[in-house]
Amino acid sequence: MNVPGSVQIIDVSPRDGLQNEKQTVPTEIKFELIEGLIDAGIKKLEATSFVSPKWVPQMGDNSELMQLINQARHPEVCYSVLTPNMRGFEGALKFAADEVVIFGSASETFSQKNINCSIDESIERFAPVAAAAKAAGIKVRGVISCAVGCPYEGEIAPSQVAYVTKRLVDIGAEHIGVADTIGVGTPIKVQNALKAAMQYIDVKDISGHFHDTYGQALANILTSLSLGVAQYDTSVAGLGGCPYAKGATGNVATEDVVYMLHGMGIDTGVDLDKLIHVGQRISDFLGRNNGSRAAKALLAKLQD
Amino acid sequence: MNVPGSVQIIDVSPRDGLQNEKQTVPTEIKFELIEGLIDAGIKKLEATSFVSPKWVPQMGDNSELMQLINQARHPEVCYSVLTPNMRGFEGALKFAADEVVIFGSASETFSQKNINCSIDESIERFAPVAAAAKAAGIKVRGVISCAVGCPYEGEIAPSQVAYVTKRLVDIGAEHIGVADTIGVGTPIKVQNALKAAMQYIDVKDISGHFHDTYGQALANILTSLSLGVAQYDTSVAGLGGCPYAKGATGNVATEDVVYMLHGMGIDTGVDLDKLIHVGQRISDFLGRNNGSRAAKALLAKLQD
Repeated sequence: MNVPGSVQIIDVSPRDGLQNEKQTVPTEIKFELIEGLIDAGIKKLEATSFVSPKWVPQMGDNSELMQLINQARHPEVCYSVLTPNMRGFEGALKFAADEVVIFGSASETFSQKNINCSIDESIERFAPVAAAAKAAGIKVRGVISCAVGCPYEGEIAPSQVAYVTKRLVDIGAEHIGVADTIGVGTPIKVQNALKAAMQYIDVKDISGHFHDTYGQALANILTSLSLGVAQYDTSVAGLGGCPYAKGATGNVATEDVVYMLHGMGIDTGVDLDKLIHVGQRISDFLGRNNGSRAAKALLAKLQD
Repeated sequence: MNVPGSVQIIDVSPRDGLQNEKQTVPTEIKFELIEGLIDAGIKKLEATSFVSPKWVPQMGDNSELMQLINQARHPEVCYSVLTPNMRGFEGALKFAADEVVIFGSASETFSQKNINCSIDESIERFAPVAAAAKAAGIKVRGVISCAVGCPYEGEIAPSQVAYVTKRLVDIGAEHIGVADTIGVGTPIKVQNALKAAMQYIDVKDISGHFHDTYGQALANILTSLSLGVAQYDTSVAGLGGCPYAKGATGNVATEDVVYMLHGMGIDTGVDLDKLIHVGQRISDFLGRNNGSRAAKALLAKLQD
């Protein structure tokens, strides 16, 4: 089986995960989560987002959290933050984020309903953010949401993914995330979306973001590995629900992904034994079922 | 992607699933489950087992259940039953099972601890069952448990799988099931186990049985598809727990597998819309969380 020898895990639980949890999480708990992830070997994470607290109250403590982070910053770790506009970018710059993330959608309807503008308009809004980030020496990651399916439009054509990839690369994105935001993708469709992105960016600069809503995330990661994709967004304990289907699964659990990769002899730099405790701790805090099946099985064995 | 055009789903929930649920399930409910599965398009299922009710009380109603089945038998459906010995085989014969299943282990320690004899001794016990089944025109399926890993021995060498395959084929098994009983397998290890079995039996006569304990089942099915394996054991709603890690996931959910296969354009003959209701009904009866993520997402969408 032709797969990469090592994979970078990008743990998105502090941002994408917690953002989709109802309960407000204190800044210290977020910081403890981030430190726990780093202690377990995570080298890249989504720390927070600089969006209006009106829209995303859970991320309203972005400045406080970044201050805590900066008091004990790990130079080997890449701290990403989400910045939808110039105002958000100023926050990222002020707190010296290593990478800013901008989000385009492959679905016109999702773009309209989610950020109230067309795909093209959203790219135009992101252009100054990307330019300012480049000027400041901050990495720019463009994520394409609904790259396989959309809650409103259903299946999304790979040509849409190719189009948004090109637009994001044109405005300065150095990295493209192909995101199955609602987890409807299956292996062949995911390969087609990735191949579309690969028309405009090298596979080494592509990451996969697969929700596990329909249980397909690991199969989709396996099929992406076979194309050479070596970076994946994951969320410890599967933190984060699915806003489009209540009670359904959201992000794929970091532990399940690491278990698969290590089982295949693929290096991640992550210490799974440490990681399962980080995921259980935040699950306990949230009073939430641990969403990682590997973690549940490993923790059950420890209790025997 | 080179995968089979169609796949046979073998739903094992009435036997392997319910056997690992604590609550005693009345015969009528089992029969309703079986009829529901068939109505949803399942063409092969594990109906029950003919083992001593002392060991497996949940299957103590095997005769009553088979009587109910025989009153409304679907000729296009293959009804399998588990028969560990000649006494069990007599039950299978009496009620005209279409297939008998015998279980060998690829792990010597598991064989000793689970059925109190060596691998070789277990095969010798099964030999008369296989011979009698052949003489009666009943199909014989040999399943190799712990084909990838063992709760006592850890990793299992593919050569063990090859050895047990050969022994089972030699005594008359026409079909081999490669079972990751504890769900520890990952794609490359699973491929190696399957390739070992393929030394002694054609891939068209191999099925995969992958527990989802560590979340790996769909990835393992995807990798098996790429080898041409076109038959899989699954359990509706993920019925059945994991006896080796309390609270952990057991069988892979039929709905999640069907969702992946249909998404890849692979025909199963199963109506997923019907199937999700069958799984939710038995989950409700058991007062149990539905173990299928695809079913949860699809049912949540129906409630919107």
